This record gives sequence, C-alpha cells and structure tokens, in this order.
Amino acid sequence: MSPLSSSLLNPRLSFSLKPLFLFSQSSFAPRKFQIPRQFVSAKRKTFSALASEQSSATDNGGRSGGGGRSGALSPSPVVEEVQRIDVNPPKGTRDFPPEDMRLRTWLFNHFREVSRLFGFEEVDYPVLESEALFIRKAGEEIRDQTKFSMTVAVFHFYVQLYCFEDRGNRRVALRPELTPSLARLVIQKGKSLSLPLKWFAIGQCWRYERMTRGRRREHYQWNMDILGLPEVTAEAELISSIVAFFKRIGITESDVGFKVSSRKVLQEVLRCYSVPENLFAKVCIIIDKIEKIPIDEIKRELNATGLSEEAIEELLQVLSIKSLTKLEEILGGAGEAVADLKELFSLAEKFGYSEWIQFDASVVRGLAYYTGIVFEGFDRKGKLRAICGGGRYDRLLSTFGGDDVPACGFGFGDAVIVELLKEKGLLPELNLEVDNIVCALDYDLQGVAAEVATKLREKGQSVDLVLEIKPLKWVFKRAARTNAQRLVLVGNTEWQQGMVGVKILSSGEQYEIKLDELE
Amino acid sequence: MSPLSSSLLNPRLSFSLKPLFLFSQSSFAPRKFQIPRQFVSAKRKTFSALASEQSSATDNGGRSGGGGRSGALSPSPVVEEVQRIDVNPPKGTRDFPPEDMRLRTWLFNHFREVSRLFGFEEVDYPVLESEALFIRKAGEEIRDQTKFSMTVAVFHFYVQLYCFEDRGNRRVALRPELTPSLARLVIQKGKSLSLPLKWFAIGQCWRYERMTRGRRREHYQWNMDILGLPEVTAEAELISSIVAFFKRIGITESDVGFKVSSRKVLQEVLRCYSVPENLFAKVCIIIDKIEKIPIDEIKRELNATGLSEEAIEELLQVLSIKSLTKLEEILGGAGEAVADLKELFSLAEKFGYSEWIQFDASVVRGLAYYTGIVFEGFDRKGKLRAICGGGRYDRLLSTFGGDDVPACGFGFGDAVIVELLKEKGLLPELNLEVDNIVCALDYDLQGVAAEVATKLREKGQSVDLVLEIKPLKWVFKRAARTNAQRLVLVGNTEWQQGMVGVKILSSGEQYEIKLDELE
Repeated sequence: MSPLSSSLLNPRLSFSLKPLFLFSQSSFAPRKFQIPRQFVSAKRKTFSALASEQSSATDNGGRSGGGGRSGALSPSPVVEEVQRIDVNPPKGTRDFPPEDMRLRTWLFNHFREVSRLFGFEEVDYPVLESEALFIRKAGEEIRDQTKFSMTVAVFHFYVQLYCFEDRGNRRVALRPELTPSLARLVIQKGKSLSLPLKWFAIGQCWRYERMTRGRRREHYQWNMDILGLPEVTAEAELISSIVAFFKRIGITESDVGFKVSSRKVLQEVLRCYSVPENLFAKVCIIIDKIEKIPIDEIKRELNATGLSEEAIEELLQVLSIKSLTKLEEILGGAGEAVADLKELFSLAEKFGYSEWIQFDASVVRGLAYYTGIVFEGFDRKGKLRAICGGGRYDRLLSTFGGDDVPACGFGFGDAVIVELLKEKGLLPELNLEVDNIVCALDYDLQGVAAEVATKLREKGQSVDLVLEIKPLKWVFKRAARTNAQRLVLVGNTEWQQGMVGVKILSSGEQYEIKLDELE
Repeated sequence: MSPLSSSLLNPRLSFSLKPLFLFSQSSFAPRKFQIPRQFVSAKRKTFSALASEQSSATDNGGRSGGGGRSGALSPSPVVEEVQRIDVNPPKGTRDFPPEDMRLRTWLFNHFREVSRLFGFEEVDYPVLESEALFIRKAGEEIRDQTKFSMTVAVFHFYVQLYCFEDRGNRRVALRPELTPSLARLVIQKGKSLSLPLKWFAIGQCWRYERMTRGRRREHYQWNMDILGLPEVTAEAELISSIVAFFKRIGITESDVGFKVSSRKVLQEVLRCYSVPENLFAKVCIIIDKIEKIPIDEIKRELNATGLSEEAIEELLQVLSIKSLTKLEEILGGAGEAVADLKELFSLAEKFGYSEWIQFDASVVRGLAYYTGIVFEGFDRKGKLRAICGGGRYDRLLSTFGGDDVPACGFGFGDAVIVELLKEKGLLPELNLEVDNIVCALDYDLQGVAAEVATKLREKGQSVDLVLEIKPLKWVFKRAARTNAQRLVLVGNTEWQQGMVGVKILSSGEQYEIKLDELE
C-alpha cells in the first residue's frame, strides 16, 4: 500500500503526511481498492509528461484516464515548493476555535437574554461604514492623520480609526463603535419609529491600535440604547440591565461597581468661570487622562487651553469630589448636574442596586458626544480597564444634520469582562455535548446508521454520526471527547431483528431496542 | 413654554424639532421646571457672547451658570448649518432594524439548531484577513487587478475581492468566504485537533460586486465542514443537514432540489484527451458559464485553451448528462467519479432524501479548490440563483503549505433563501413580544414600578418598563405594539395597600395583587 493511499484510508495518517501535490493535480487516489503502483505507472502518463504536451493538447489517442483511479499514485509530479502561509489571524484579530467560540456564545447569550428581559429589540449595522460617520464635523482638530487611520477626529477622543479608500475612491472605515450607526439609522427611519425606542446590538468594532500587549484591533461590544427619553429613569434602567447581567454571571457588588457623574458638573464649573462652551470637549480630553499622567501635566494642558489658574484649581477640586452632598455644597442644589445625579441615586435604591454605584466627579468617559450623566463599570480591585461605559448623548443626531432626540446608552466590551471572570475563577466550563453518538459496526450498515441518526435528529436529539468504520475503542474515545450521553451501535446480528444496541454512557447501562422504539 | 423645552418634555415633539444647536453646546434645557426666558436671558450670557471671549477665558466674575438650568433656552446661539450625512448604509451593505434583525435571528437560529443536531461545533474567524489567504498561489492569472479589488486571483473564479492596504502597508481583505480561514486555522492547530472535525460557522462575507440591482457587497453565510473524512458519507451527511434545515423552515422537495456531480467527471474526460491537469481550473471557469452565455461562445473559449474539437464535443456531451446510468455507460464503471456518485445516491436513500437530489454533470461550482463531489441547492422553478453550494476540497490545505486533510463543506447564504421564503409565502411573522408592560401612574411611584420590573425580571419575565408618566391610552397603544401579555399598573390607592393592578391583555381579565404574590 502506497503512503498516499493508506493516508486516505486513515485520515489521522493523512494529516501528518507531507504533501507533494498541488490541489490542481489529481485527487484520484484509490480508496477501497489498491492497484499496484507498477501496473498503474505503466498504463498512465505522468503529470510531468502531460505538462510537456500542454501547448498542443489534442487527442493523441491516449484515453489513459478512462478506467483508472490512479493519477496521484504516480510519484513523479511537480514537486513545487509551496510556501506556508502565515497561519495566524492578522495582527490584533482573533480566531474563535470551538472552545473560544463556546465562551463567546455563552457571553452573547447572556447579553441577549438580559436585553430581552428589559424589553429591548436587537439591531445591527454594517461593520463597514462611511468614514464621515465617525468624524466630528466641528470642534476637534484632526491630528496624526494618515491615509489609513486618524486620531481624535473621531468621536472617541483617542481612537485610531481603521479606515481605507475603496475602489470608487470612497472613504470607508471599520466601525470603531456602534452609536453613530444607530444615530444614522434613527435619522433615516425618522417618524416611523415609536418612541421611546429601546434597542440593543452586539457588534464587532475595530480600532487601529498600536499593538501593545493584550491590545487588540477588534472587539465585540454589547450596546443598549434608549432614545426618546429625557428622564434620568433611562440611565437608571440601563445601569439596572448591566447589574442584572453581572448578577447572572456571578459577579457581585463586591467585585465591581459603577462610577457615576455628569458632564454637566464640568460644564457648570466651566460656565462659572465663563469658559467658552466650545472648549468643553478639549477640557474633557485632558480630564480623561487624569489617572494616567501627572497632575502637573494636567494643569499645564488645561492652562494651555486658556483656563485661568483659579478655574483649574476649582475644576480639579470639584473633580476630586466623591460625595454627592459635597458636590451640592459646592455647585448649589439648583443645577441640573446635582438634580440629575440625586434622582439617579434615588432610583438606584428602588431598582435595588444602590450598593453598586458611587458618585465620582472625575468620570467623564471617552466619547465626545456625551451631554449628561456618564458612568463606567470598574473592578473594585482596580486592576483592569473600565468594564463598560455609557451616558446621555442628547445632541448626537443634530451633529449629523438630523433632529435631536434625547438619548442614552452604554457599550460593554467582550474583553475586560472575560479577564475579570478569569481572575475570579468564574469562567464557565463549557464543553461540546451531544445527545448521541451513532455508529455502524460494518460498512454495509453505514446507511442504517444514517437512518438512525436522521430519526433521532427529527426528534430533536443531537447526533454525532460516525461516518467511517472504526474500532469500538476509537468510538468510545470520541464519545468521551464529545460528552455523548448515549451510544447507539448498529451491528449485523441485532439489525437482522430490526434492533440496535444502546449504551447509556454515564451509567454503563446497556440494552437492545427496536429502532422504532428508540426515543 | 419655549419650543425646545417643551420638546424635551415630550420626546415625540423633540423628534420633529429642527435642531439649531450643535452637540457641544449646552443641553441644559429645563425639564421639570420652567424658567421664563426673559429672566434667564437677562442673567446669562449667550453662547455667541461666550464664544467671542474665547481667547481670554478668565474668571470675569460672572458665575452665571451656577444656579441655572438654562443654557439652551437662549435663542441666540451659533446657527451653524450642519450638513445632513448620508443616512443610508454604504453601497451594497445593510442595516438591520428590529424587523430585519428578527428575521436574521430566526434564520441563524435554524442554522445553529441544525448544526447542533448534527453534532457540529461553532467557530469563527476574523472578517478581515490577509489578502494572501484568498489569492491562489499558482495556476490562474490575475486580471482586472486594481489596488482595492481583484478578480480571478481568488479562489472564487469570479469574485471581486474587497481588499485594501492597511497603515503598515499590509495587504488585507474583507473575507469573500470562510473556507480559507478554516484551512488556515486547521493548519495552525495541527495535530491538536481530533479528526474528523465537524465545524460550522455563520459569518459575514464581502465582495466588491458591481452594484447591479439586488446585488449586495456583503452577505452572511452558514458553513458546515467535515475534515478528516475521505468517505462520501461526509458529503451525504452535509446534504442531509441542509435537507433538515429546509424541512424545519417549511421548504419541501417540490420547492428545491440538489444538483450533484463530481469534479472528477470533468477530470476523467479531460484525461481521456490528455488535456494537461493544469488546464483543469481554466476549463471549469468556462464550464461554469454554460447557462449564462451562448454555447458557441463556450466552444470558442474552450478551443482557445487548446482543447481539440473532439474533446470539446465529448466534454459538452458528458456535461449534458442528467443520468448516472448514462454517465456510467460513457465513463465506464471503474472510475472514481461514477463510484463516488453512486455511493452518494445510495446513501441519500438511507438518509431519506433521495427525492431531493439529482445528478447533473454540468454542475462544477464556482470555487477553484473543489476536487470531488460538488453540489448546489436550486429552486425548482428556476427563478433564483443557487441557494447553497458545496463540495469536496481534499487539496486545499497544501496550497497553503500545510498537510492535506480530506475535507468537504458547503456555504449557504442568507439572501436567496429569504427570496425563496418570500415567494412561497413562508416568511415567518416575527414580532417583538414582551411578557409585561409595567407602568407607574404618577411620578412618585416611578421607583415602585422599577422595583416591580426588577422583581419580574429576576423571575425570568421580560418587562417593558414605562420610564415616564404617560396617559393610559398611550400605555395601551405601546402594549399593543410590543405585544405585551400583561399590564402591571402601579397606582397610589393600590400601592398604599402594597398592591398593584394587573390586566391580562389577551382576555381583558383584571385584578389587584400583592407585589410579593406577582409571578
């Protein structure tokens, strides 16, 4: 038996066999019958001989292929060196082999189920959008722009947009987030939408990150958004849904919390000092770095925007406040910032998650379009980046030329939460689990095994059908790997009486049963 | 009441309000209290006034914002014209608003459930891959190549690859199909994989199509693949799974069928005439056009490849065969083509779908890497493009420099099947359905309504919580739209006794119940 033919009889062998043949060559390797190599070679032309005749490919009378299943047996063909491709996914991206996919599915199912419990409807948008959708019309300067990425020009303060030019010279981008697409769709649908709308989406988002350790260029994000509600009840409902999610997966208020503030805090302080509104986003950019760079550097940058030293001092003082009472003392009780926040904390109590949230004036969040309450989920050990973040963005639609609708929402990534679950030992054990493994004991019964499998599947049972004839030892090993509950064996003796053998794999219980009675 | 403030009180109004304010301006519109405009204006600077002071933003003593919730009331701000963005998704792409998403979810759930019944494990790969993964190493010439798309160079004969250059000068492409990524991952995982492996994926695929009517640049594809099995049982199992899918969604064998052939038929004919193997793919390209262009044009193109007229005649004769018996008469019974196909038809009987499949020698399918049996699902009225297609590709891995593994699989798009369902009147009616709509009758009870919602959600019931105070008429209208089963009303009189009002919306039954007893 030649190596190639034996490899085709046994796939495990074939997997380790060094390939000599390009795919365009014959795959006529024998499968069930063996033709001695010498015999075949004598009857057939080799591929190299065929290749030399290529330019005058006319019928030369050699009907050599008619009866043969032999091509690849010829050992002389083109031994062209095929360069091995890079087997890794592109930099910053992930494959999802079954074990990783099970985790992703588990996570997404919880996202979906929570969204369903809260009465939200699922939506999605193209992963490829017009670049214009992510570029702010006004305000921020564009810096570090190249043909294929740009920073700051996007709604995210620091995001590198993953953008290109397509063939029609259109500027397109892989979406860095979902909210601008939502805004686009809401403007498009206009008055046909019933407000308030409650939408959720789970979508892949892309950034052209510098490839530092652990940073990826793509992640999935769960978004929930409520449009049409100016009331703080909307923010309260959104945080409630994230809490519900955490509870489902075993995360408690001693593991995570929400830091809550309002953009209006900053705005009220700036207004006290008559700082122009159009500096607001710029100030937010600087504030957002407060835990990352030294305080003197923050001061220097704020000063460079034109803020007085007095304003900077008060700003930093206000930002350090962690108590709502204290904030009220400083800002007074009549401002919206304090009123909104007080209402949110009061609702949190009714919703039953007041243990989860705390006021923290330093939270501004990284999206330029937030206008009111902002919040972020954080791990209480302080080891991880923000788990999720959200806020109110009542003015986003008008930046696209649409009519504004009061709106708020959050994004929840698939990366940090998995790190947290890992750290807490809360990652679920997820295995492939099939109800049945069905196996014929000899080749002629393969069709019967197929019949058995079809019957079971029609009853809603999953079946790993063994599609080749294998020793029982192999079958048991496979059953263990697929966590099969039951083994159904189709053997000659039993089948002659219309029976199949059954083994319950957990208990070892064994019996024979008529196929019709198999449930 | 100013138009803007009233709009914020009533989201329906705000939706139709022409926006005059950019998002970076204040969103301090009053919500619950009204401050007469004159009063506010007198106390506060307008935004335009603030803007003019931008360059010297120091504390001028005007703590005008401290107590106000007034900013946006000032009617004088920058009335900058915002150009409305294109509200449509990019050419050839789709949004999925709730109604479309429900259909997509319904379809994908069936894909997933069938895959589960067959014991397949879900996987996924990056939507963005190295361009090299889709370019054939040898054989086909590259034509019509531009910087951002190329034809024929890819495994699909005719696909325009949607490709770019990224910032690091790497050539990347939005995947046109999933199989090359699967091959890459299998090579990467190597011997750690247990064969046979049965994987499925549902992924978005991209092509740079010319935008003719109904053609899109993206679609979702359900793939199932079996690797490690040289036996035709693998193909039989795959077709069986598609049949199971059709049956689940109400499609019968009188609606659709499978045309089945084998690439080996063509190969055997070509070998009879000593046509070099490396012309095989080129001939397939031409054959694949057989129903699209005149037969004389087909002959001319085949002749141009160097095929003799006799070979062309026999080729076309063989390709017109629709009966396996006839094929056997011409090719003889010893070849693999006939043996494979006979085995498949015999298995189809055992699996119970022989009514669904028919032999058709003209089927070659559009992927360059197929080596054996190929099949496509078609609608029997002949109105639509192929519904799905698949085949054996035993040599794909070695084109990437990996070790070959016998393999077969199929791709099933999300577009044609929906057209078919539409035509047959089989599209499901899918609506948002919530278990409860919960509503407080006055503002002070909003928190109680939140409490009720949380309790119900913890019991697994979905709740559309009304987050604002609305007239009952509005609530009933909303309940009708969300198909709520039950209305839970929180009113003052009942709540004083710890009770809530319940109305079963289908029957009209009404009662009061203690919150603790609400199930």
